[in-house]
Amino acid sequence: MNLTEKIKAKIREVKDFPKDGIQFKDITPLLKDPVLCADITDELMHQTIKLKPDAIACLESRGFWFGMLIAQRLQIPFIPIRKLGKLPYETDKYSYSLEYGTATMEVHTDAFKKGQRILIHDDLLATGGTASAAAELIKMQGASVCGFIFLIELSFLNGKENIKKYCPDVVSLVGY
Amino acid sequence: MNLTEKIKAKIREVKDFPKDGIQFKDITPLLKDPVLCADITDELMHQTIKLKPDAIACLESRGFWFGMLIAQRLQIPFIPIRKLGKLPYETDKYSYSLEYGTATMEVHTDAFKKGQRILIHDDLLATGGTASAAAELIKMQGASVCGFIFLIELSFLNGKENIKKYCPDVVSLVGY
Repeated sequence: MNLTEKIKAKIREVKDFPKDGIQFKDITPLLKDPVLCADITDELMHQTIKLKPDAIACLESRGFWFGMLIAQRLQIPFIPIRKLGKLPYETDKYSYSLEYGTATMEVHTDAFKKGQRILIHDDLLATGGTASAAAELIKMQGASVCGFIFLIELSFLNGKENIKKYCPDVVSLVGY
Repeated sequence: MNLTEKIKAKIREVKDFPKDGIQFKDITPLLKDPVLCADITDELMHQTIKLKPDAIACLESRGFWFGMLIAQRLQIPFIPIRKLGKLPYETDKYSYSLEYGTATMEVHTDAFKKGQRILIHDDLLATGGTASAAAELIKMQGASVCGFIFLIELSFLNGKENIKKYCPDVVSLVGY
């Protein structure tokens, strides 16, 4: 099996989570396989080192799992981007529309430096709403997005179309 | 500076977060220092390898940051223990009392195997309530706790006293 097949074999489909009609991609079985996790980290590193990131911004919470591994492999800072109310220090905020209502993402005001090239990471790309919010926060602090990196992409939701205006380099290891 | 001093120098104290009277230890400045993160991971690995863990259970969300790094360094499975409603598959649940009300932690029903030795990790040990909940979930599945590992311990809250009944091996790199 190649890496994509190995990853797909470990992803568990959970029906109707977090709500009816959604077929959730559960990557927790994959986290129980340390050799596969090492292979995934290697591949994510190889695909992103050429983007020359100065730091990696990772999205709460599933984006934290491989985020620190990539940050360490590239020896760059790890910046958490979190849901409203979770970060303790002063934050910049960005709100975006969901199907019903809005969501707000936050980052510490001293997270990025002007001119830095930032890689955005999450476990899964769906519509791209959260990744776009992350990109807006990065722009707000005078840094730029040098790439997006996901384990999984739900291609039928066209997330890539929504985020490529921030940066055309969008990497994912597994597509559905 | 030794490692403890280096860590303390990077921890930001934030007043009145998440509520009045709490002096929050913000480790996000430390995550921006990849060399220090590597040194911390080395130290956590050296202090836990002798406990011979079969897997590491990490507490949402700040426990995810170093959790995956330790799991990879020891080449063992990473098991997330999360707040109620975050894990997609069937779960075991454990509720515990807080100052006001209760909190519930969950783990997937297939997280641990009977007889496994499990290391519990979080960024910070306060009263030990969440770490105890994690220990109860591990026992519920027929596994045992082989150690606790924290970056920070708030010694004045006596958390160590509350968790050592599960296992006397409690490691922390920085104390207050």
